[in-house]
Amino acid sequence: MRTAGAGPIAARALAAELPGSLVVPCDVRDADALAEAHAQIVATLGAPGVVVHNAVLGARGDFLTIEPRQMQRALEVNVLGLLHVARLCAPAMMAAGRGAIVVTGNTSAHRGRAQFAGLAPSKAAQRILAESMARRLGPEGVHVSYLTIDAVIDVPWTREAFAGRPDDFYARPDDLAEACWMLAHQPRSAWTFEMTVRPFGEVW
Amino acid sequence: MRTAGAGPIAARALAAELPGSLVVPCDVRDADALAEAHAQIVATLGAPGVVVHNAVLGARGDFLTIEPRQMQRALEVNVLGLLHVARLCAPAMMAAGRGAIVVTGNTSAHRGRAQFAGLAPSKAAQRILAESMARRLGPEGVHVSYLTIDAVIDVPWTREAFAGRPDDFYARPDDLAEACWMLAHQPRSAWTFEMTVRPFGEVW
Amino acid sequence: MRTAGAGPIAARALAAELPGSLVVPCDVRDADALAEAHAQIVATLGAPGVVVHNAVLGARGDFLTIEPRQMQRALEVNVLGLLHVARLCAPAMMAAGRGAIVVTGNTSAHRGRAQFAGLAPSKAAQRILAESMARRLGPEGVHVSYLTIDAVIDVPWTREAFAGRPDDFYARPDDLAEACWMLAHQPRSAWTFEMTVRPFGEVW
Amino acid sequence: MRTAGAGPIAARALAAELPGSLVVPCDVRDADALAEAHAQIVATLGAPGVVVHNAVLGARGDFLTIEPRQMQRALEVNVLGLLHVARLCAPAMMAAGRGAIVVTGNTSAHRGRAQFAGLAPSKAAQRILAESMARRLGPEGVHVSYLTIDAVIDVPWTREAFAGRPDDFYARPDDLAEACWMLAHQPRSAWTFEMTVRPFGEVW
Repeated sequence: MRTAGAGPIAARALAAELPGSLVVPCDVRDADALAEAHAQIVATLGAPGVVVHNAVLGARGDFLTIEPRQMQRALEVNVLGLLHVARLCAPAMMAAGRGAIVVTGNTSAHRGRAQFAGLAPSKAAQRILAESMARRLGPEGVHVSYLTIDAVIDVPWTREAFAGRPDDFYARPDDLAEACWMLAHQPRSAWTFEMTVRPFGEVW
Repeated sequence: MRTAGAGPIAARALAAELPGSLVVPCDVRDADALAEAHAQIVATLGAPGVVVHNAVLGARGDFLTIEPRQMQRALEVNVLGLLHVARLCAPAMMAAGRGAIVVTGNTSAHRGRAQFAGLAPSKAAQRILAESMARRLGPEGVHVSYLTIDAVIDVPWTREAFAGRPDDFYARPDDLAEACWMLAHQPRSAWTFEMTVRPFGEVW
Repeated sequence: MRTAGAGPIAARALAAELPGSLVVPCDVRDADALAEAHAQIVATLGAPGVVVHNAVLGARGDFLTIEPRQMQRALEVNVLGLLHVARLCAPAMMAAGRGAIVVTGNTSAHRGRAQFAGLAPSKAAQRILAESMARRLGPEGVHVSYLTIDAVIDVPWTREAFAGRPDDFYARPDDLAEACWMLAHQPRSAWTFEMTVRPFGEVW
Repeated sequence: MRTAGAGPIAARALAAELPGSLVVPCDVRDADALAEAHAQIVATLGAPGVVVHNAVLGARGDFLTIEPRQMQRALEVNVLGLLHVARLCAPAMMAAGRGAIVVTGNTSAHRGRAQFAGLAPSKAAQRILAESMARRLGPEGVHVSYLTIDAVIDVPWTREAFAGRPDDFYARPDDLAEACWMLAHQPRSAWTFEMTVRPFGEVW
């Protein structure tokens, strides 16, 4: 269950690459729509054992230039969206005594730059919500982790936006997926809550 | 301009202690009401030179037991409330090339304990919003700071809730006010964004 | 090349389990002895591609009860020992454009508790040295990472010291080794500098 | 008792400005010399109530270009020097149930840049040692704090090194002294361990 996406069309293209997958687009801000999507997934594939929360919304700009409405929507998608998803998926994991919820973030979750007023607060809130969930679910055998991606991801639109940069500039989606997979499958005597990944040449 | 309070009654009691003060209770989630309160303050006392944002709302409980609606309201008060206040007050400070906004928080702004799912995410978001504001306003001569209070504050209701604790257990409101005053008046060659205060005997 | 150990005897017992391994005990504080050990390893097995720096020394006690000499030795083993090892091993990795140095730590690297005055400062210094090395070597294709182990490791002496605790209380050495292996083999578009691991039931 | 300085000559120039002051230059790495200096101060002025540890030594360069001997000396001055001073001064403060130790640092105490391998590890160790001391001494009424100065300080040699920068570029020594004074005199219901100061226009 991947709780985000660049819309139904991209989601269907992805599904075509993954035989046996199920695509259920929905708006994570809408608790009812999410509950319906979740019910459909459970009915078809069973209760999810691993959830990757990758939905994100944010506006570029400082606190004077963003619209308060933009921040509100970022909070709804990035924070309340995670809360809704977790409340739907955690109980079955707790009953099973196993499962994983991986939340993806970026450096905005850790610091507030002037031009990220429309994104950073919601990512920081999301990270701390995930931390609170991790402490609640850990002793139940359910692993919550937060993957901070300090990178430009190698997808078609970033290749256009950063034209001319070498391949090494980007984080490869396959490598990010591997990081998620690793977090979701760590042996439970050595779990990680938080991990940052960045390309080897990134300045940090 | 103190943007919070334990309701109109407490605010009026406070005003009675402070000759020349003006009490304008309002709901910081309501942008229009805030704008009206701000206009009233400006008309009476002039544009505020120092703003202490102390409004807070939160629910106790883990992510399964709180109501999503409670988290939403905490985000509205603690994050959007600060955004609204800052957008109203910053422009006059920027025009003057001076001013201070002090935001108060607690350890929830830094870490997410299991039972603080209804508070910690919103305080973390507030802290990062303040950081983003500080970076935007600093070069304009306007000082934004975040005061983390890692303490039980000595007020009547905590004296009841923690009956039997010695005086040293509490942070004194006067001492916290002094910390706010200090932050608001630091010389501008040595500004602090973030400061934590706690009683000398506190375990941390 | 594992730069520590509970002495020559334990090291030989370990070697007996690992066919083809080479055991070269030495004191990491002694730059000359390390250089000799390194030369012996290079001559026998070639230049190391992965180095795990696991050597540690520390004294329990607060700043008044430890001996300054104990802190000095902790700094020599934990900080200077890493510096010596890195200076010996990094050049060949840089020439190859690949390689990994994994340093193991614990929560003392992040915070100074009262009774850890004889350990925490040296671990904090070690972590920041590793961070400085990571920034220097990353663009050269050499990956430095710091693994914080927030756990009691399951070895014979801790089983005695914490008698009665369930198996779940401990971090399993095999799982910690897997975390080191993962860090040493991350794809270079998604490297991690810092990762903390702890058992699922650990309070944090 | 100021435990550092740019040498005996600068110290005497400073003393000339401060009637009633006592200048006792010594090498903080030398425990015996420090003990003697401390004894001389106690005999002349009484046991110090406030100690500012400002001694610092570091080498510029990455881990490959610095000499290990340079790092060792930085650890001796920045870490062991603080340990020696604290062991000499804390007991009288504990007996009095009051006193303050302020340690000054910089951003190297928080992160390891590639070219700060010869300084950052020792400052990180110093900060964590101060934190360990703060936890030990706080309940005794003795306040330890760490002041991170994220700035170029306005002194003659930096004016030369950064020629052409405006006055606003620098942190003023008087303002830094005020921050130290504030930390040393905070009311004990609201103590701060760590505080960063930087000029209002600084990029951070």
